Amino acid sequence: MHSIDTTSAPRIAVDAMGGDFGPSVVVPAAVDAAREGIAIALVGDEERVNAELAKCDADGLDIQVVHASQVVEMDDKPADALRRKKDSSIQVACRMVKQGEAHGVVSAGNSGATVACGMFTIGRIRGVQRPALAGILPTEKNPVVLIDVGANVDSKPQHLFQFGLMADVLARYVLGVKDPSVGILSIGEEEGKGNATVRDAFDLLKASQLRFIGNVEGRDIFTGEVDIVVCDGFVGNVALKLSEGLATSLGRILKEELKSSWISKLGTLLSIRAFKRFKKVTDYAEYGGAPLLGLKDIVIVTHGKSNELAVTNCIRMAATSYRNNATAHLAEGLAAHKGLTNKDTKSAA
Amino acid sequence: MHSIDTTSAPRIAVDAMGGDFGPSVVVPAAVDAAREGIAIALVGDEERVNAELAKCDADGLDIQVVHASQVVEMDDKPADALRRKKDSSIQVACRMVKQGEAHGVVSAGNSGATVACGMFTIGRIRGVQRPALAGILPTEKNPVVLIDVGANVDSKPQHLFQFGLMADVLARYVLGVKDPSVGILSIGEEEGKGNATVRDAFDLLKASQLRFIGNVEGRDIFTGEVDIVVCDGFVGNVALKLSEGLATSLGRILKEELKSSWISKLGTLLSIRAFKRFKKVTDYAEYGGAPLLGLKDIVIVTHGKSNELAVTNCIRMAATSYRNNATAHLAEGLAAHKGLTNKDTKSAA
Repeated sequence: MHSIDTTSAPRIAVDAMGGDFGPSVVVPAAVDAAREGIAIALVGDEERVNAELAKCDADGLDIQVVHASQVVEMDDKPADALRRKKDSSIQVACRMVKQGEAHGVVSAGNSGATVACGMFTIGRIRGVQRPALAGILPTEKNPVVLIDVGANVDSKPQHLFQFGLMADVLARYVLGVKDPSVGILSIGEEEGKGNATVRDAFDLLKASQLRFIGNVEGRDIFTGEVDIVVCDGFVGNVALKLSEGLATSLGRILKEELKSSWISKLGTLLSIRAFKRFKKVTDYAEYGGAPLLGLKDIVIVTHGKSNELAVTNCIRMAATSYRNNATAHLAEGLAAHKGLTNKDTKSAA
Repeated sequence: MHSIDTTSAPRIAVDAMGGDFGPSVVVPAAVDAAREGIAIALVGDEERVNAELAKCDADGLDIQVVHASQVVEMDDKPADALRRKKDSSIQVACRMVKQGEAHGVVSAGNSGATVACGMFTIGRIRGVQRPALAGILPTEKNPVVLIDVGANVDSKPQHLFQFGLMADVLARYVLGVKDPSVGILSIGEEEGKGNATVRDAFDLLKASQLRFIGNVEGRDIFTGEVDIVVCDGFVGNVALKLSEGLATSLGRILKEELKSSWISKLGTLLSIRAFKRFKKVTDYAEYGGAPLLGLKDIVIVTHGKSNELAVTNCIRMAATSYRNNATAHLAEGLAAHKGLTNKDTKSAA
């Protein structure tokens, strides 16, 4: 263990200090991923990382430990994190990717700082106007990709269109959706409903090669009838956090009520399996990561509250993205739609 | 019954043809409200309304029936409904209010058309730049007012500020909240987070007499910690429909799972009371109506799927608004903030 490996297996740089639980969750999650043949670079405070590694059964696994002397805190401003913490675990991880020492980054840390580091250290794919965070949410059927969930605000129609293109590549080559459908989030199903930006983005999406199904509404996100929902990062971030909050509140109400008498407690015991599935659907850990699409390499941001399973899932997703050449496919997708993505670039600057 | 009454009790004009179920739900709901001393004008197809009335025990109640020869369908465009259906139940109801024959309108019909009719027939209070729909949503604690839920898109900072002012009056004088707290929906708690519009509206709200608590996020809406959440109508409409969709999906998943074995079926039977409360919280019918704030008289829009209880609740809310002089208080609130509401009106036009 800890030896540097240069085989062709994807190596994922994992921000060991990220998340509310830091190395105690991230390290065992990375060990789990390493057991599946993913090479890992654990970036963070060497001493703490090694202490956690010693608790895991990691012998023979391809896990490097890369020291970083600083940590970005959850309340650090992205710009400060970039400027003042050049030796933070997240910046070191991004530099490893930039320099070809790793193939992707996973962080459960400060998401604003991770997005900023990804953009500045790794850089955008040529032609991408605005990288975007793709939230992957559980639904009644297959997961839905909600893009953007907060990398941008005040998006222009061109940006929304590119979000759709990028999410199409994610769905096809990483999530394995055969012919993903794309909707644009609006406030009515009919064409022409929505605000000015959505109406213009609608036209671009309609003219593209994507399987565009038109406007979708808030109530359509969780039915699982659409694979990709495009929206501005302000709206997407509100939607993501609202879903999380509502699912938590409903779960809490149900739990309280079920504990309110011994009869319902007994009932709950009998129905325990049913509640497990309910929890699974409301539990983001199952899906976890939000890939930051549009960069030259793979960056996956995950929730600060992520548990081991969520972090392992993100590392898997990063490895799959690398193996399936997601970045190259994204560049192809952009090239195929050059006429549309360059349209009216003045207003989309 | 059916006689015209001119006592001082509030008379509410109820669009009897509105909603997915029309007179079969709206008429008995109105009869329930009439039993509580609210005078009613049922507006719609006289024959159908009378047939439904005959099924109810409405003797001695103050219920007028006012004939309207047309009906706005759910898929009619608001502008068409205004222009081509001048004798629709919703237009007739709005005209009754305009002419002083009723004190408020309740409709479960086409909400776009109701908003348009309200704005054009009844008109705005002097100084109101954009009337807004106030959604009243159940939370873990007290209901929260989300404003705007879809009367406007592309709102300017001035508009968002006025939404806060108007919702404050609603919370105080209609919902009985003593000193309502107001938050602005954004994508981070700290001042300065959000898009350009939100940041400017933040400053206006901060300078006002409202109990402004700053930015709130999507996850804060359903905790019940804030009384009023201000947002653009696009974002609010997405949030409203998303909550509705997610609550329905979660309820459906739970129901399916609980039916999946006889053991969990038995468990469910034992926990039935707990599920009732869960359903109550996820059930919009309990709160129902979205008042359209900023008009000279009261207009309340409710969900097309509304059941009797929801419609009765809306009629009650309209009567309370009238009795408590909500419209006059709104005008006062606007006057007290004239300096702020008129600031930078060029960009707020």
